[in-house]
Amino acid sequence: MASSTPLLKDELDIVIPTIRNLDFLEQWRPFFQPYHLIIVQDGDPSKVINVPQGFDYELYNRNDINRILGPKASCISFKDSACRCFGYMVSKKKYIFTIDDDCFVAKDPSGKEINALEQHIKNILSPSTPFFFNTLYDPFRQGADFVRGYPFSLREGVPTAVSHGLWLNIPDYDAPTQLVKPLERNTRYVDAVMTIPKGTLFPMCGMNLCFNRELIGPVMYFGLMGDGQPIGRYDDMWAGWCTKVICDHLGLGVKTGLPYIWHSKASNPFVNLKKEYKGIYWQEELIPFFQSATLTKECTTPQQCYIELAKQVKAKLGKVDEYFSKLADAMVTWIEAWDEINSTDSSTAAVANGAKK
Amino acid sequence: MASSTPLLKDELDIVIPTIRNLDFLEQWRPFFQPYHLIIVQDGDPSKVINVPQGFDYELYNRNDINRILGPKASCISFKDSACRCFGYMVSKKKYIFTIDDDCFVAKDPSGKEINALEQHIKNILSPSTPFFFNTLYDPFRQGADFVRGYPFSLREGVPTAVSHGLWLNIPDYDAPTQLVKPLERNTRYVDAVMTIPKGTLFPMCGMNLCFNRELIGPVMYFGLMGDGQPIGRYDDMWAGWCTKVICDHLGLGVKTGLPYIWHSKASNPFVNLKKEYKGIYWQEELIPFFQSATLTKECTTPQQCYIELAKQVKAKLGKVDEYFSKLADAMVTWIEAWDEINSTDSSTAAVANGAKK
Repeated sequence: MASSTPLLKDELDIVIPTIRNLDFLEQWRPFFQPYHLIIVQDGDPSKVINVPQGFDYELYNRNDINRILGPKASCISFKDSACRCFGYMVSKKKYIFTIDDDCFVAKDPSGKEINALEQHIKNILSPSTPFFFNTLYDPFRQGADFVRGYPFSLREGVPTAVSHGLWLNIPDYDAPTQLVKPLERNTRYVDAVMTIPKGTLFPMCGMNLCFNRELIGPVMYFGLMGDGQPIGRYDDMWAGWCTKVICDHLGLGVKTGLPYIWHSKASNPFVNLKKEYKGIYWQEELIPFFQSATLTKECTTPQQCYIELAKQVKAKLGKVDEYFSKLADAMVTWIEAWDEINSTDSSTAAVANGAKK
Repeated sequence: MASSTPLLKDELDIVIPTIRNLDFLEQWRPFFQPYHLIIVQDGDPSKVINVPQGFDYELYNRNDINRILGPKASCISFKDSACRCFGYMVSKKKYIFTIDDDCFVAKDPSGKEINALEQHIKNILSPSTPFFFNTLYDPFRQGADFVRGYPFSLREGVPTAVSHGLWLNIPDYDAPTQLVKPLERNTRYVDAVMTIPKGTLFPMCGMNLCFNRELIGPVMYFGLMGDGQPIGRYDDMWAGWCTKVICDHLGLGVKTGLPYIWHSKASNPFVNLKKEYKGIYWQEELIPFFQSATLTKECTTPQQCYIELAKQVKAKLGKVDEYFSKLADAMVTWIEAWDEINSTDSSTAAVANGAKK
């Protein structure tokens, strides 16, 4: 797949949430420069974010988000990397790759720098196999196949909606685990990509994530986190649980494994504990909710699925805490905003383009 | 875990089905010699199988099986490696490791010889996590843990019943894939162990397999294959599908991944095609059957589960082919024989010990 034209060059946007100068892009330049970036600036909108020369980008700060979405901007989180999902909404591309600004280029065991984006694209362009486990991992990789006993009727697989990448160095641990194992580093390079089976939930991390926006963009909502909210650091988890349930319903695949990025620094576990505190006990009720959530056959688009799921969130999780009623409302607002921004109406498109640099 | 006393030395038997001299054991000597071997000789019982000096073993040929089981010997396959399950039945140990005689010691990427048995034991002695996917694979391995978003209530895991190992060099492909890719070799060393999620079936290969005989031994029946049967090479698949359904029901875990063995030679794809032919189309009906199979709450032992499953096989798969009615009867016979051999009655134990060398 090494070609002179970068894969999906005009069909993929890179979404980066940030509060600082994007010096980390220097290391990614050989891999990211051909692509368009959507930068979502969090925090103080008057701060100027410096983007290294030569990158093609558009940047949105809180003022832009408020201007473009009006009252519906309430569904976009502030002072939390959950704000990144605004970038998914205003993209006009088929695929999104999103990465955190503390993630750098990792090396494979041979010492070669890993083009994470290229691996994500390979993952997302090849089918997934959610209905039966293949013991040699992704059967579509070079040198692998379906093993003996894999039903032939399932070998075509299904379209892949999500490619979830991993992290060397600082693992994505919760605050309690960070506190217990402050020195643990992930040094194990596992050379595998696999489909997460149908009916199985997983913890989706937003640090190094690619998805097909056309197939499931509208459900990649990162929820209400950070400023004014009782919770943080569950934005990607929330999106992952919703996305997996809806992918299972729509017959789409979710892959995890390669590519690795180098996660440079552990966030403060004491700060994290405060953000996660309610999530840690709420999730004990959220997981059974998502494990048993089913959608009606009438839900055939991601939007329909998401609205249906929002109703169930309100009805069933509203009892856990009033936060979930608010979140359910925000899920609906998000879909309304998504459809507005992504209508074929050219004036809306013009608004969305207002921030283009 | 490197200790002077080999792990589980008096609690594990190594079961080897064979038709030839066991020269392959020479390479395994440093790892296997401390353990007791149960050799199940297939084919002509008058042939003398040579076992390298220094190994502690008992050997059973067809005459022994017929003598020990009497009419119930009909449930043990002949001229097929499915006969290995007789070894599971006559073992008195808590754990079984089974390996084919064309499997040799593999090397890890650093060139170190892999003690496959030691890795299996590590897998089987640490819990499984079938209810939620951990993106950093087995959380109980050194240097790994549960990632952010993994529910704390699920972190104790469940007992591991099966450890399914993989193969470098010749992958375990079916005949059609062997024919299409005669030169494909598995060279990818994936440094991972993972739990196969609840509700997900997998193709269990009997080449390099360890299990807790106390937890699920009675369901590790390798079916009716080979001589006088319409099918071959589905013995381990059958056992795997039954075992996974029953492990899911009983709340037990199944792991796959490490360790690798070196699989030395591909079997003849034309011969395999003949053996597999009916299995290839039957499996299209078997998979939906196993995917939807549920057991009643009254089934709390592996024996009860297996008898219940045998009834469902007869009722639902008997329609696919009369072979499955015969197989369902054999499943019941197998359990009767298992219980007889494994009763505390000392005379039975004496019979089973009759073949000890």
